[in-house]
Amino acid sequence: MEHDVVDTLISPEGHLEVLSKAEVAKLLDTSQSGLYKIFRSCALAVLNCGSSSDDGKELLERYKSFDITIVQRERGIKLEIKGAPAIAFVDGKMIKGIHEHLFAVLRDIIFVSNEVIGNPNFNLATSEGITDSVFHILRNANIMQPDLNPNLVVCWGGHSISRIEYDYSKMVGYQMGLRDLDICTGCGPGAMKGPMKGATIGHAKQRLSGGRYLGISEPGIIAAESPNPIVNDLVIMPDIEKRLEAFVRTGHGIIVFPGGAGTAEEILYILGILLHPENAEMPFPLLFTGPETSREYFRQINQFIGDTLGPEAQGRYKIIIDDPKAVAQEMVVGIRAVREFRKSRSDAYYFNWLLRIDHEFQRPFKPTHENMRNLSLHKDQEAHLLAANLRRAFSGVVAGNVKDEGIRAIEKHGHFEIHGDPAIMGPMDKLLSSFVLQSRMKLPGKEYIPCYRVIQ
Amino acid sequence: MEHDVVDTLISPEGHLEVLSKAEVAKLLDTSQSGLYKIFRSCALAVLNCGSSSDDGKELLERYKSFDITIVQRERGIKLEIKGAPAIAFVDGKMIKGIHEHLFAVLRDIIFVSNEVIGNPNFNLATSEGITDSVFHILRNANIMQPDLNPNLVVCWGGHSISRIEYDYSKMVGYQMGLRDLDICTGCGPGAMKGPMKGATIGHAKQRLSGGRYLGISEPGIIAAESPNPIVNDLVIMPDIEKRLEAFVRTGHGIIVFPGGAGTAEEILYILGILLHPENAEMPFPLLFTGPETSREYFRQINQFIGDTLGPEAQGRYKIIIDDPKAVAQEMVVGIRAVREFRKSRSDAYYFNWLLRIDHEFQRPFKPTHENMRNLSLHKDQEAHLLAANLRRAFSGVVAGNVKDEGIRAIEKHGHFEIHGDPAIMGPMDKLLSSFVLQSRMKLPGKEYIPCYRVIQ
Amino acid sequence: MEHDVVDTLISPEGHLEVLSKAEVAKLLDTSQSGLYKIFRSCALAVLNCGSSSDDGKELLERYKSFDITIVQRERGIKLEIKGAPAIAFVDGKMIKGIHEHLFAVLRDIIFVSNEVIGNPNFNLATSEGITDSVFHILRNANIMQPDLNPNLVVCWGGHSISRIEYDYSKMVGYQMGLRDLDICTGCGPGAMKGPMKGATIGHAKQRLSGGRYLGISEPGIIAAESPNPIVNDLVIMPDIEKRLEAFVRTGHGIIVFPGGAGTAEEILYILGILLHPENAEMPFPLLFTGPETSREYFRQINQFIGDTLGPEAQGRYKIIIDDPKAVAQEMVVGIRAVREFRKSRSDAYYFNWLLRIDHEFQRPFKPTHENMRNLSLHKDQEAHLLAANLRRAFSGVVAGNVKDEGIRAIEKHGHFEIHGDPAIMGPMDKLLSSFVLQSRMKLPGKEYIPCYRVIQ
Amino acid sequence: MEHDVVDTLISPEGHLEVLSKAEVAKLLDTSQSGLYKIFRSCALAVLNCGSSSDDGKELLERYKSFDITIVQRERGIKLEIKGAPAIAFVDGKMIKGIHEHLFAVLRDIIFVSNEVIGNPNFNLATSEGITDSVFHILRNANIMQPDLNPNLVVCWGGHSISRIEYDYSKMVGYQMGLRDLDICTGCGPGAMKGPMKGATIGHAKQRLSGGRYLGISEPGIIAAESPNPIVNDLVIMPDIEKRLEAFVRTGHGIIVFPGGAGTAEEILYILGILLHPENAEMPFPLLFTGPETSREYFRQINQFIGDTLGPEAQGRYKIIIDDPKAVAQEMVVGIRAVREFRKSRSDAYYFNWLLRIDHEFQRPFKPTHENMRNLSLHKDQEAHLLAANLRRAFSGVVAGNVKDEGIRAIEKHGHFEIHGDPAIMGPMDKLLSSFVLQSRMKLPGKEYIPCYRVIQ
Repeated sequence: MEHDVVDTLISPEGHLEVLSKAEVAKLLDTSQSGLYKIFRSCALAVLNCGSSSDDGKELLERYKSFDITIVQRERGIKLEIKGAPAIAFVDGKMIKGIHEHLFAVLRDIIFVSNEVIGNPNFNLATSEGITDSVFHILRNANIMQPDLNPNLVVCWGGHSISRIEYDYSKMVGYQMGLRDLDICTGCGPGAMKGPMKGATIGHAKQRLSGGRYLGISEPGIIAAESPNPIVNDLVIMPDIEKRLEAFVRTGHGIIVFPGGAGTAEEILYILGILLHPENAEMPFPLLFTGPETSREYFRQINQFIGDTLGPEAQGRYKIIIDDPKAVAQEMVVGIRAVREFRKSRSDAYYFNWLLRIDHEFQRPFKPTHENMRNLSLHKDQEAHLLAANLRRAFSGVVAGNVKDEGIRAIEKHGHFEIHGDPAIMGPMDKLLSSFVLQSRMKLPGKEYIPCYRVIQ
Repeated sequence: MEHDVVDTLISPEGHLEVLSKAEVAKLLDTSQSGLYKIFRSCALAVLNCGSSSDDGKELLERYKSFDITIVQRERGIKLEIKGAPAIAFVDGKMIKGIHEHLFAVLRDIIFVSNEVIGNPNFNLATSEGITDSVFHILRNANIMQPDLNPNLVVCWGGHSISRIEYDYSKMVGYQMGLRDLDICTGCGPGAMKGPMKGATIGHAKQRLSGGRYLGISEPGIIAAESPNPIVNDLVIMPDIEKRLEAFVRTGHGIIVFPGGAGTAEEILYILGILLHPENAEMPFPLLFTGPETSREYFRQINQFIGDTLGPEAQGRYKIIIDDPKAVAQEMVVGIRAVREFRKSRSDAYYFNWLLRIDHEFQRPFKPTHENMRNLSLHKDQEAHLLAANLRRAFSGVVAGNVKDEGIRAIEKHGHFEIHGDPAIMGPMDKLLSSFVLQSRMKLPGKEYIPCYRVIQ
Repeated sequence: MEHDVVDTLISPEGHLEVLSKAEVAKLLDTSQSGLYKIFRSCALAVLNCGSSSDDGKELLERYKSFDITIVQRERGIKLEIKGAPAIAFVDGKMIKGIHEHLFAVLRDIIFVSNEVIGNPNFNLATSEGITDSVFHILRNANIMQPDLNPNLVVCWGGHSISRIEYDYSKMVGYQMGLRDLDICTGCGPGAMKGPMKGATIGHAKQRLSGGRYLGISEPGIIAAESPNPIVNDLVIMPDIEKRLEAFVRTGHGIIVFPGGAGTAEEILYILGILLHPENAEMPFPLLFTGPETSREYFRQINQFIGDTLGPEAQGRYKIIIDDPKAVAQEMVVGIRAVREFRKSRSDAYYFNWLLRIDHEFQRPFKPTHENMRNLSLHKDQEAHLLAANLRRAFSGVVAGNVKDEGIRAIEKHGHFEIHGDPAIMGPMDKLLSSFVLQSRMKLPGKEYIPCYRVIQ
Repeated sequence: MEHDVVDTLISPEGHLEVLSKAEVAKLLDTSQSGLYKIFRSCALAVLNCGSSSDDGKELLERYKSFDITIVQRERGIKLEIKGAPAIAFVDGKMIKGIHEHLFAVLRDIIFVSNEVIGNPNFNLATSEGITDSVFHILRNANIMQPDLNPNLVVCWGGHSISRIEYDYSKMVGYQMGLRDLDICTGCGPGAMKGPMKGATIGHAKQRLSGGRYLGISEPGIIAAESPNPIVNDLVIMPDIEKRLEAFVRTGHGIIVFPGGAGTAEEILYILGILLHPENAEMPFPLLFTGPETSREYFRQINQFIGDTLGPEAQGRYKIIIDDPKAVAQEMVVGIRAVREFRKSRSDAYYFNWLLRIDHEFQRPFKPTHENMRNLSLHKDQEAHLLAANLRRAFSGVVAGNVKDEGIRAIEKHGHFEIHGDPAIMGPMDKLLSSFVLQSRMKLPGKEYIPCYRVIQ
């Protein structure tokens, strides 16, 4: 099958176009640093937005001739692009939102490489050092706006959801937009796109021209969840753990829509953090919501959390079924409490310094077959550590489903094997099976073949 | 049935808040000038946006206690509002878009009363004088932006359309928004709302923050077609004929979606004008479009036009079924021709001075029973004059369906009787009947009882 | 003597470029309405800025070939200019500030002619009608900004002052600019330019990018006091009385620098108004100031006021010698009282509705020889009426000195004769003589020949 | 003598207020890093603006109780300031321009310390590494604007000049402002302030609201040349050599007004660079200008250059006496050539990458008594290397005159001794003596005692 491609030359408009000679050289050096490879694959993902595939490996194979080069000119750099997916263009001209995303990718890849990696000012072996690097990447991306009141709602949920669930996520976004709430998501399709579209209409009706639609991604997932052009602030974190930390330190509340393994990973991440004793006093609005048709889905999730992490974990969220307005109002109330808490402690509105994130949730987890096999999935540990390990298990499933590297590993070595305490494996197997049945693992189109086997 | 109401006090933000003492006095004088009555009913219509009623009379009766007053303060005027429909508010605060619309209503009502009516500079008995007054009202509303390239697409179509038609109009709007086209409509629901919502998403993806969603209304229709808050430029013309003239002089092209009697009125208006011999060379992109399900609908319309105005009229438009992208691309091409034409003749991009509008299309038509009975509906006249009379016939039907005054007249005197040449009455009866069958006359909810009788 | 001239074609940038066909036609009609003549002479005055002449008649004679025409284009109107003074251009390109002034002139001339004169909504025979017309002209010029706090200081003083006085006026402007005060003047050279230049530096240091430098002129005086390009809001009132009313209704306080007959006219105007019993409670900061060298000058002025209007009048102003910082601080305090007064009475910050201006101060005074001869200059009337008549006397002297029409009248009929009560004529003669001695009547260059004779 | 001081707490407004915990900690650590000391002394210098002292040492001693601390708040950091010079305040409120400068100082000190020093990405031992660091500091300060056309004119000249020279520098600035040229200086008084004030008026008349007044300083000199608040972009380079490199890589042309040792240092710096064979083709407008009274001054300078560097060096500049308009026009022409040159080579408009700066001009020179004694001042070397050494000699004199460290060294060890070839020492002695005679070494007030002795 042939895919239409376009060649073009684009100029940036922000302040990022100013690169030093050394930065350009490093980025274009295809031999060793590996920087070009990451830049090329992220750029391709951004350009592929709107396509109906969520297969990172397939994408790279489909556009083999794709090439992106930096050119120096009297007004700064330009990007010369060859073989780009035609879907990124309208009548031959690149959609402006995608255009901006390309330069955001460039900015973050250069910054992480030049200023974070190898800079002795960041000690990435410590929890403080990792948090500091997250802060610097976000600051460099101009994400933190000290003049804004807390109003950023992180929306999590599946990229593969039903039309009814999608329309519901739009309605929630609309009600939030009417109330001057901004949206942050993982920036793919489905539950990551709906709230932004709804909020766009809500903001338009309220004449809020500065509405923020923040997308936070990472090089491994971006191909499967390429950013919708509505996203008007895109930031690429270096790995999944820093991406999750970015969500919870910049967002002022979280809404979870129905989803699959990735959504489960996110739920376990935030619950694991909130269960940390030092966060006991920390206000953090966390709502699970969906249309009437998702009532059973959330019953299952709630059951799984009760079975594994216990009632304390259940006490940190609220489930609201089929009531977009109530969701938005509840979030407004919750964020008001966040604001008062921060103010009383002089903690920044734009970065949750006080949230304690255990090092276990920060260390990058590489889902090799061995690492997956050796996860400690038993109740003989503190709840927040069990959550950390469960998080890793679901993270591996996501990788095996949609990430280039994960797919290749499964092709080569077969299923991931997930072992553990039956009291945990039972509920987990049940949950994963229900995701498969409800087509939440992958976008529809092909039959889903599980990449894992739960061993009880 | 009780309707929730809210009291509030609002300040404007534009430059309109600066009123002279005389202007305020005139507007608040409830005794004689009648200005207050029009202001109150238009304000109520604006506040009622989003309600599912299109009955102008019912609206006024429902909110009897509604009151709006101007208050002078050190920073200009404020509006004190009592008994406003709760639907205009989010958590007790008026939606900003509606807030703006109230002041637009105030601006236009004051301007027309103070500067147009009774000002000897406008001779409303002449065609030039009427056009001049239209120009001044639009200029005062800041509608004409000389720095903009031609890109304003007027979208006509029914306020009562099917979900499929509505979604289609959104897709057309989206494709136009991606191509930097702006939208102008009559600012009610249905085909007047869909294109704006779609364009909002298209503009957001293209980072076009200045997207224009222009709504043009008039005091008689606004209650039935209250402006959606996305409309970010609202102007109230004094009557239906000036409203139609405003559409065709400010818009650079027209798209017609499926609709009922009002849409037929609009089609006849523009065709009647384009048929004028002096407009023979004038480029004016005119597209009829809808989803697959509306193919038959447009076949009927096309037939009716052929039967009454003949093939020359059919040559002035193009019908495109089920292809939003093609519609947008065709419009881009058509507007390019408009631009070249204006440039070559030094005619303004923002006001089509060169379009010849016969006085017959400008003189206000009052749809009394007598006037309706005496319409000249026969082929023994030039096509553009027949179009003018057919336009009046449909205009009367609209009034009888949804306008306060029209509904009261029908209640008092019974049906309008529409006489004429059988060769015209036959197709007309057929067309109107199909509108009834397809629920295009009124919003669903109650059974439609025709306000007219076609007498062949 | 030959004067360099330039031809050019310029486009506007504000919203004024949108003119109707009728407006353009009226303006270009050289036969009857006289509009073209006023437009041409005001335009020429604006273009002559920076020249060292203050002779309105000479200017018109010098640039006889000057011509200005309106051209309609697809993006609105342009101005085609022939034979313009080269001083308005830098390397062949018109200075942007002057460019804007031309369009301000166009705007006001059209507005006054189309919307004020002949519009029955304004009854110019009444005090209310005149005030209403002043309001509308200022509103149309976008002068009234309801979001601004009171901060507009009117600076009066001579166009022909010494270098020391000029530098002092700059220092006062600088101290006011540092305190976020804006400046309004009659927009000529000397004491009308210095405060604006000083305030520009003060605003720059305080990063106040929206600093306002408002110039208010009228067709008769503009040739002698052509607006400095720093003026960023220019408005042309129809006559000197409306110009004076515009000063006192928009300004929040007044500073008087040394000057000649025009300054005396202004002092008498404001004192006459403040002496009106209805204005007794009205706070209105009024400061007379100059460098050490002007101490004697203000002593004389104070003496003249004491001799003619009495001590109550002297109680309405404060004289501060050689202390720019104290002047600015005093003005800040005074304006604070103005703000509280307006707030407590809900009177607009941007237009002093509550100030009572007697009809005597509003009726246009035409300084013919007869009118000058018949002025009632005696003490047998209320002080504010005497002030009104004294004002007229000085107004006539200004006309005879610098206005085209006045100069011609003097050339034809000889001196104005000013009669009156010796108790008034004595001090007046003394004051006028001192103006002559101090070269305050005209710009230096030629010897000054008085246009009046005081007859005791 | 007592000096008035003020305590205050200020918030920033740009994006700099977002600091990480680690950055704040490092800056406030008074024990070791030395960062606090530099920050405090630069902040004090900025606050001392407008004072009539140019003695870095005296300043620190005068405000011994001055203290500045960073406070974390929910909207970012604030600065708590104690014992600040009252001159920085208007009626108790800090002048906004100075307020901004404080945060610029903070930004640059943190950036240099965190991202440049110790970051292995910058190899400061190489010429490329130094240039790269200059680039990064300027980029971080948001100085490089790729959308701007070349228009930045560096103005050099003395901080201690006569009133006539100062007024002349204002007139040159005014003529440049009228032509849309922006100004860059070393940001002290005298010839560094005049052009900015003039350009402010020129820009205001041309409605150029984005006029740039860029000041480039370094920690050693800032106390003697504290930035005028008109400076709206301030950047603190780490040392004098990087400051000079910043001038010549960001500026598009240079104007030299009369000055003393610092000005001589700057002239030798730019001439030494332009004499490098690789820069032979590089267009670089360089104008020496002053009023009639400075004709002799420039004759002397020209003579000195001829005597030491020879006629080739003399060919790189043009001397224009008493003609501000000609200076501005010549600069416009020169910059046009710069623009064409950069465009033809795709070199950035905002950073002169192609200019070759020999490592000799980049290595920081520490003016110790030993280093001063050992300078190679003879003709037995290439002209551009002789220029480098002469530059060092004058740099030492500046340090001995006004820098804290230099003054202390002279107090302790006596005169600097400057040895060399008599053919060079003769002209040098003559030039320095004339600076002393003309009061160009220090601001007037005390008698100047030379800090050097020329030994022939």
